[in-house]
Order: sequence, then C-alpha cells, then structure tokens
Amino acid sequence: MKIKYSNPSLNQKFQQVKIHSNGLMNRGMLFENELNLSNEYYRIHQKAIIYKKPTPVQIVKVDYPKRSMARIVEAYYQTPSTTDYNGIYRGKYIDYEAKETDNLSFSFKHIFPHQIEHLVNVDKMGGIAFVIIYYRKLEKIYLIDIKPFYQLYLDNLKDDSKKSIKATEIESLGGVSVSRGYTPLIDYLKAVDSYYF
Amino acid sequence: MKIKYSNPSLNQKFQQVKIHSNGLMNRGMLFENELNLSNEYYRIHQKAIIYKKPTPVQIVKVDYPKRSMARIVEAYYQTPSTTDYNGIYRGKYIDYEAKETDNLSFSFKHIFPHQIEHLVNVDKMGGIAFVIIYYRKLEKIYLIDIKPFYQLYLDNLKDDSKKSIKATEIESLGGVSVSRGYTPLIDYLKAVDSYYF
Repeated sequence: MKIKYSNPSLNQKFQQVKIHSNGLMNRGMLFENELNLSNEYYRIHQKAIIYKKPTPVQIVKVDYPKRSMARIVEAYYQTPSTTDYNGIYRGKYIDYEAKETDNLSFSFKHIFPHQIEHLVNVDKMGGIAFVIIYYRKLEKIYLIDIKPFYQLYLDNLKDDSKKSIKATEIESLGGVSVSRGYTPLIDYLKAVDSYYF
Repeated sequence: MKIKYSNPSLNQKFQQVKIHSNGLMNRGMLFENELNLSNEYYRIHQKAIIYKKPTPVQIVKVDYPKRSMARIVEAYYQTPSTTDYNGIYRGKYIDYEAKETDNLSFSFKHIFPHQIEHLVNVDKMGGIAFVIIYYRKLEKIYLIDIKPFYQLYLDNLKDDSKKSIKATEIESLGGVSVSRGYTPLIDYLKAVDSYYF
C-alpha cells in the first residue's frame, strides 16, 4: 500500500511553531525555529549538515479514509531518546540540545538527565557536544560545552541550592556568546569554530 | 503546562513493529528492529552511538483529556528529510539508510532521491555514508558505500532497463557482506571497519 505523504512547506513550518507555542511543548519553539532556519542556511551553503530530529510520537491508532492515505487518530508525545540536533561539521560529528528560558537563570529541570548523559557519551567518543541556551530576557545566546555543563550539573546534585545556571556563570565557565545576525539568523558555528577548532 | 510522556519500553518496541508491519510503512520493519537492537548493543558496549530517527509526523490536532496530558487526534506521516540512522563511530560521523526487499533485486524506487542526495553530501563532508540492504529471499545483507551506489543510480537514470540492484552487482561494486550473529544481531560495524578504516 502506498502512503501519501504531506509535503512540508515553509507555511507549515510556521504552523508547527504556532501549534507548539500553544503551551504544548517547551517554550523554546521560536528559538528552535531560528536554529532550524540557520541550519537550512548552513546546508544550502554546504557549511554543515545539521538537522533537528523529529519529535518522537507513539502511534496508537491509524485510520485509512482512503486506500492511499493514513490518518493517525490517536498518538502521544514520547520522551526523546537523545538531543534535538545532530549532524556533521568540518568532518566531525556534532550534537547539541537547544533550550531557552524566560528567567535570568536556566533551570536544570528543563533538560532530561539522559540527554546530558548522551552528550557526555558523544564527547567521550570524540564528537562535538554542547548545550545552546537562549536567555530571552537578556537577549543573549550562549553555547556551553558539555564538560563544564556536566560538572555544574553534578555540583548541583550535591548542592540543593544550586539548581540553575546564570548567563554570567556560563561566561566564567568558558561558554561562548553567540550573536544574532541575518544570514544566518544565529551563526552558532562561529562559536563552535572558536571553541572546538 | 507539563506534558506527561509515555515511557518507551521493549514491549512497546515490538508493538511498534506490529503496527508498522501492518502494511503501513515500508516492509523493512523487522530488519529495522534488528538494526535498532544491534545499535542498542553498540551503545551499551560504548562502541558507537547510533540511533534511528523518529518517523516525522505532522500534527494537526491535539486534545487535552487531562490538564497534564496531550492526546494527538489528527496527524499524518511526513516524508523524512534525511535517512533513517545517524550517529558517531570511531570519532567519525556515520549516516545510512536501511532497506529490505523480498525480490532478488532492490528497486531504486524504494529510496527517495533526496535521501541519496543527503548521503552524497555527507560523503563530501567527510562522513561515512552508505546504504544497507537486506535481500530477504537470499538471506543476505549488504552494505554499499554511497559513491558506487550513486553511480549506479545515475546510470539507472540514463538507462530505463536498469531500475534495480542485484546482490551480485553490489558484490562486484565493492559492497561488503554483513553476517548475522547474536551479539549483536547484525554486526554491520565490522563491515564498516573493513570498508572505511
């Protein structure tokens, strides 16, 4: 049986953003969308091949209103096994999680422990692994390598009062500031160049 | 609003296989499941970090039967942007598409042109890129690098009579045979070692 796929278009991209910003997923969707467009720019200019992974969905029930069409009528969001983004840059494997916060400090509870573990493992294998955080209120974006991030995370497990990271802390840990632009919107690979190469 | 995620379990993995083998997606699901378990084995033994990407789904309508629960009630399968699998192995980026066929020859129509293009681009950037094909009738699995695969694909566009690849052709193009085992079920990284390292 042949399945008719829907064609993703730019229109739909924005539609997805609308759906998600509906309070449904995390509130990082607009930032995510900017990252997606930046990655599209990188791909077109053959600078890197990096994609956001689809959100995993557990499909329970599918209807066939037509022979060639499958309509999912019951499904649930699943916890992602890994991080949001991965791909290849300058011959190396690259893997990261993108987060945004409306607070002055990014809370560790917004990142899954198994996602941190995944990034630690990627780093051990010789890949580039980091977290990119957008502090909306400060209008600042930082890229922080998984090693100092993980260290801070472990410290946090010991000390209950330490449950989040401020932008200034990221700076003192060697995190790199990412500036906004137009082509691409978020040129985070410049920060990757300065930190990893 | 907090979303309650469903917990993926081994049980569910098999359930997914059942759903898919329902004629819904391609018929490669059992082979895919064997690859998934092999990748799990590789991860546990810290040999490689390779995951299957979730099937992309366009979500149209979501209900909230409870405050903390999101139930997707209308969604459609989307064409995947890239390939099924990617990750890191021996410090390198690895990317591949897995296919299986019940015929003696694997038809090119079962692989999307943009997936071939993606693999060609990964190869150009210095990554490991290949197609792994299971010929069910022959009980044979082959790994073929994207370069000879792409060449054959281009030849096929010129010559209408040439629309598929036989196992013997893969062998003559330098494709590597992958043997079945128990730990892991499909030790395709052995074939990767012999071809790429």
